[in-house]
Amino acid sequence: MTEPAAPAPVRNDTFLRACWRQATEHTPVWLMRQAGRYLPEYCATRARAGSFMGLATNVDFATEVTLQPLARYPLDAAILFSDILTVPDAMGLGLSFTQGEGPRFAHPVRDEAAVAALAVPDMAKLRYVFDAVASIRGALHGRVPLIGFSGSPWTLACYMVEGAGSDDYRQVKTMLYSRPDLMHRILQVNADAVALYLNTQIEAGAQAVMVFDSWGGVLADGAFQKFSLGYTARVLQQLKKEHNGQRIPRIVFTKGGGQWLEAMAALDCEVLGLDWTVNLGQARARVGGDVGGAGKALQGNIDPNVLFAQPEQIRAEVAKVLEGFGVPHADTTQCGPTHIFNLGHGISQFTPPEHVATLVHAVHEYSRKMRG
Amino acid sequence: MTEPAAPAPVRNDTFLRACWRQATEHTPVWLMRQAGRYLPEYCATRARAGSFMGLATNVDFATEVTLQPLARYPLDAAILFSDILTVPDAMGLGLSFTQGEGPRFAHPVRDEAAVAALAVPDMAKLRYVFDAVASIRGALHGRVPLIGFSGSPWTLACYMVEGAGSDDYRQVKTMLYSRPDLMHRILQVNADAVALYLNTQIEAGAQAVMVFDSWGGVLADGAFQKFSLGYTARVLQQLKKEHNGQRIPRIVFTKGGGQWLEAMAALDCEVLGLDWTVNLGQARARVGGDVGGAGKALQGNIDPNVLFAQPEQIRAEVAKVLEGFGVPHADTTQCGPTHIFNLGHGISQFTPPEHVATLVHAVHEYSRKMRG
Repeated sequence: MTEPAAPAPVRNDTFLRACWRQATEHTPVWLMRQAGRYLPEYCATRARAGSFMGLATNVDFATEVTLQPLARYPLDAAILFSDILTVPDAMGLGLSFTQGEGPRFAHPVRDEAAVAALAVPDMAKLRYVFDAVASIRGALHGRVPLIGFSGSPWTLACYMVEGAGSDDYRQVKTMLYSRPDLMHRILQVNADAVALYLNTQIEAGAQAVMVFDSWGGVLADGAFQKFSLGYTARVLQQLKKEHNGQRIPRIVFTKGGGQWLEAMAALDCEVLGLDWTVNLGQARARVGGDVGGAGKALQGNIDPNVLFAQPEQIRAEVAKVLEGFGVPHADTTQCGPTHIFNLGHGISQFTPPEHVATLVHAVHEYSRKMRG
Repeated sequence: MTEPAAPAPVRNDTFLRACWRQATEHTPVWLMRQAGRYLPEYCATRARAGSFMGLATNVDFATEVTLQPLARYPLDAAILFSDILTVPDAMGLGLSFTQGEGPRFAHPVRDEAAVAALAVPDMAKLRYVFDAVASIRGALHGRVPLIGFSGSPWTLACYMVEGAGSDDYRQVKTMLYSRPDLMHRILQVNADAVALYLNTQIEAGAQAVMVFDSWGGVLADGAFQKFSLGYTARVLQQLKKEHNGQRIPRIVFTKGGGQWLEAMAALDCEVLGLDWTVNLGQARARVGGDVGGAGKALQGNIDPNVLFAQPEQIRAEVAKVLEGFGVPHADTTQCGPTHIFNLGHGISQFTPPEHVATLVHAVHEYSRKMRG
């Protein structure tokens, strides 16, 4: 699809180096949902767009909101502004967002006929996404890398079967336990669609990609490995490892996946995202590897609710998370354990924007100090 | 408070023996929320009572619904029918249940004045609970043991501060991070109130007690230990270890607590409840102890959504859970690893009652077979 004419070299490549487990001068930081409702300028653009999907499907609006948090904060990465449910929408499920109620599909996938009708969608239907990637990449002028993303096959399946958010996942788990054949078919289609979607984002200019397995953590042990992890692996197997001579790091984030880190460490990806329930120091010992050895870079994991405390308390909690991981390795000649600072989940719409400045500044300052 | 005149000896003590890590002929089973809306007879009694609190506060109704699942299924324990929020209601917070929206407090605890006003409530306000315990104990005639319960100090605090259920715990976590002094004061009062509440249930006839830390798993690593586990420990320290010559086993269930099992193993309790994300075999290796050694009995942990599958599939999933734990020890001369079968969370109101029969029967049959 569309591609930036002359991709500028990345000036701040701290995030990319940390993805590759290379030594960095400070711990890079970006925030899940950093372009979001907590920013008044985002709300203003959204008002002009008329709706969430109006925002996501318009290249200029999507570019504008993606860059808004970078204008305020010295973040080390940009992430495409989009939604995790674009792929099932392109499959014809009819995505809409009702005020205050979150996403909804007009045509949930509940029976054999609906499952049989599923297919990898024509990527032309998602052109607005790839155009946005190219446009954002151009607008960034190489300031920081751009992360592309998708929901995981399982997370997409949750919404596709439930038809909306859920607090018990009854519909999707009923299908999983009573008709595993149907569930596997949905997940196969989703995995192949997600792989194609992410590869097309990479071709359009995404310099890293992230798979959001937002609902992997609701599965039982055993079911997680089979119905979530297995299909994330199927996505990763199909991903382009490089584009235009640049290697593309891959991040996998399973909310509630802390108990399965060893299983996730076997994934063909560079970075594992962690939520706030995970002890970062233990996670580093379990899967972070040693200097000169293999391992995963770790991304996360402060509780977004910390941003409701006062600046002094925010700084103290940032220090706790950084100290929890410990000093990243500093050997510039080889790879070793690295940390990318992030929230453990998306930022809340009620977050005071000035508190985000405190957090980002604290990460940079304290992580430099830790490196001595 | 009230006490059964002549407590009958327990005829089926399989559950109690498993709590004490003693060998049993089969794996005992009971289900969280086993007296609930999935049973038509429960709905009929509730309709007569007029409301959920009308049901919970009436001794005859509470006795009737507690016994309903035992009339249908050969369960190995009864659990008091009540709500986890009775204690803050007795503190004067004004509990109500709105149809389809769950519990709500008229007076949430949000500021310094409200926190300062909190105190351990007069147990006379909770007399309906203790009377129900005594009545149920009498009605059971020693058929199976009766479990009393309470919400954990942290879980009660979540509801008290949020004023209702929440999906982000923003209010309670804002207080936790910005005013930890207020949060600690709430938790101290809650811990002492819960201890007194459980001790009074024990005096009224409860033969085991369970602390439901339903929301411990939403806390960050570090915060969990400080704000949830620490106050559960404070409850346990104050509990009566025996009553009328009978030892009283204590169960602690933290939903989403699988990553903190080692920390929970240090609690002064006999049983740890586990949700379905936990690998039972690994949990046994981590905290289940050896024959002749110390350790925790483990309770759990099938996904309640398994009950929406067909009987054959339910039996297969029951076998997986039992095999996951492995063969419990069989040495009748000393203690060792034991398993109490349960769901990983409360049973869904949409569960077909006949599927529960399949599950209970499968647990008994398969666990006997495993013992050879």
